[in-house]
Amino acid sequence: MTSTLLDNIGLLVTNDAERGPLTAERRNAAVVVEGGVISWVGDAGAAPTAEERIDAEGRCVIPGFVDSHSHLVFAGDRADEFEHRMAGGVYAAGGIRRSVAATRGASDDELLSNAERLVAEMRAQGTTTVEIKGGYGLTVADEVRSLLVAARLTTETTYFGAHVVPPEFADDPAGYVELVTGDMLDACAPYARWIDVFCEAGAFDEDQARAVLTAGLAHGLGARMHAGQLAPSGGVQLAVELGAASVDHCTFLSEADVDALAAGNTIATLLPGVEFSTRQPYPDARRLIAAGATVAIATDCNPGSSYTSSMPFCIAVAVRDLGMSPAEALWSATAGGARALWRDDVGVVAVGKRADLVMLDAPSYVHLAYRPGVPQVKKVFAA
Amino acid sequence: MTSTLLDNIGLLVTNDAERGPLTAERRNAAVVVEGGVISWVGDAGAAPTAEERIDAEGRCVIPGFVDSHSHLVFAGDRADEFEHRMAGGVYAAGGIRRSVAATRGASDDELLSNAERLVAEMRAQGTTTVEIKGGYGLTVADEVRSLLVAARLTTETTYFGAHVVPPEFADDPAGYVELVTGDMLDACAPYARWIDVFCEAGAFDEDQARAVLTAGLAHGLGARMHAGQLAPSGGVQLAVELGAASVDHCTFLSEADVDALAAGNTIATLLPGVEFSTRQPYPDARRLIAAGATVAIATDCNPGSSYTSSMPFCIAVAVRDLGMSPAEALWSATAGGARALWRDDVGVVAVGKRADLVMLDAPSYVHLAYRPGVPQVKKVFAA
Repeated sequence: MTSTLLDNIGLLVTNDAERGPLTAERRNAAVVVEGGVISWVGDAGAAPTAEERIDAEGRCVIPGFVDSHSHLVFAGDRADEFEHRMAGGVYAAGGIRRSVAATRGASDDELLSNAERLVAEMRAQGTTTVEIKGGYGLTVADEVRSLLVAARLTTETTYFGAHVVPPEFADDPAGYVELVTGDMLDACAPYARWIDVFCEAGAFDEDQARAVLTAGLAHGLGARMHAGQLAPSGGVQLAVELGAASVDHCTFLSEADVDALAAGNTIATLLPGVEFSTRQPYPDARRLIAAGATVAIATDCNPGSSYTSSMPFCIAVAVRDLGMSPAEALWSATAGGARALWRDDVGVVAVGKRADLVMLDAPSYVHLAYRPGVPQVKKVFAA
Repeated sequence: MTSTLLDNIGLLVTNDAERGPLTAERRNAAVVVEGGVISWVGDAGAAPTAEERIDAEGRCVIPGFVDSHSHLVFAGDRADEFEHRMAGGVYAAGGIRRSVAATRGASDDELLSNAERLVAEMRAQGTTTVEIKGGYGLTVADEVRSLLVAARLTTETTYFGAHVVPPEFADDPAGYVELVTGDMLDACAPYARWIDVFCEAGAFDEDQARAVLTAGLAHGLGARMHAGQLAPSGGVQLAVELGAASVDHCTFLSEADVDALAAGNTIATLLPGVEFSTRQPYPDARRLIAAGATVAIATDCNPGSSYTSSMPFCIAVAVRDLGMSPAEALWSATAGGARALWRDDVGVVAVGKRADLVMLDAPSYVHLAYRPGVPQVKKVFAA
């Protein structure tokens, strides 16, 4: 088992809650990694010897990004729809059905190679943990194969039959919910860690969302929800009530929603790429943080509403437009994402944790927002 | 002289005005390059043979970006100032003086290596022509050495003694203008193609800007101006009157400014990274285009108000927030930038032009805005 000393780190972000709030930064630090696990963290001058030594030359090292919300199993793209929207068209959830048609028509190999390409893109930009949803198949067979593709790429797989009602059930949404909570769930649950539902006008209402998540919980899946993307709804409070790990979007929130998030254990995951790419108003991270809610940031990488795979880009937008400080945005994109996936082995740099580390080509993580759009990931270490 | 066939281009952007408006796109195209010059452009099926063949595999190929506005000769950074601003502080031109102090204290080697790093970053993101200003020295010796650094990296060098009044002339701005238009100009003109002035409250007023540009024109330099960044001023109309190649920022424009730009030959160069990084209102490209003005987009890469080096990022913001279509934004970042530098050999793909080409890892340039923050430059060809 090779040991590696990552030495001469100008600024190390540990997110180690035992050391301090938020990013819990160390200056002039070093980290030792053995067998994909962090075995030592401390001052550069006091580091033990190791078989291999990498000199960070004063650069900033952060935990790998934890992207807790992505939709990478699909075929085709929707660049034309994006162009139309930028010319004044309005985003609507119905566009999802175009990706459903393309996904159903694609081979397993096509789906896998497209998802692999996107995961590689994410990795190059510093993401070391990614959640991947299905949801562009919407038949039993297509959701199963979507999850099989996702499972090739991550352990954080999400069954998302309840993305939208597919065209063939347009006149029978209740029948589709029955399928999603019945045969489709039975077939998909073995390959999924999570179940998700899109609780929004044009997708599923609160009663349907409750039925979907309750069924998933009964199958041993953890619950997640999309809510508050286009308007406030009861979805957010429902997610908290059901003990969902995360409720995602949270762009439109009532006071009661914010209170529920602050009081509960459900993470509020914000997806600034969506608002950037749809020109919707941005969510208010400041309001959530001030109320005591825990905030994560993720890309929502998907071909419709947010086709970015870049966590650094999302951080830059979070700092500019969501009211987050650079330290808050970084924490939310690493430790926050980990909490949204009930993970305590990633998003933090401490002894015994996974050695998922990113060396930036910059002296500080502030540069992720200060230098928007610039690739600044020098090297990625992933367990 | 090796000839290279770039074959199987799914979408080729030529910007060739003889072929059509704006991006003048070709589908299923090929390009032959000989000795750094384009020798053939046409349909993929009809391409002549060449010694080397590169298969674009259906990807999009565009002209290399022409970044007509950057400040790459400086030392230090101002990440702390950025962080303060994002926490509610306001951008002011005075911060420039911090970079002046750091630049004066740096060695020639430090200045060169920092600028080289940024040019390499730009190149990796598809920029093949870049204008570089001095302006962080503000003494005769420091402006001369700034231009010598710039000249190592580009032919588009700009003398920018009139960036701000340095602290030692705080009580004698007239004396500083005398230096800028006298000894400093004499010393710098041999190393510069352009002269620039920052015509804005806190920097130089219209009379001073006129004196600076008039002196530069008399020394054979082309004129450029920074104006309208923080408030409307007479600078824009002055730039048009003096035949400046470009007036840059144009965030705050009066009706008369827009009319002058539409009637004259001065390019309106918009710098969306500045507004992204300072939370100022965005310039209105739509208004300029509708009036008949010619618009360029550039990064303004500098450590204070816009530390991005990414033309793709600027395009994404231009499409989201400046009212430009993806085709307009791409044209402005290539052919528009070329016009802002009085160049007809770059920013266009046609026989006899420089072989500065960028292969995107995408089927269309729309993806530059559709996939914000994602590195999508597959390969850069530069003459």
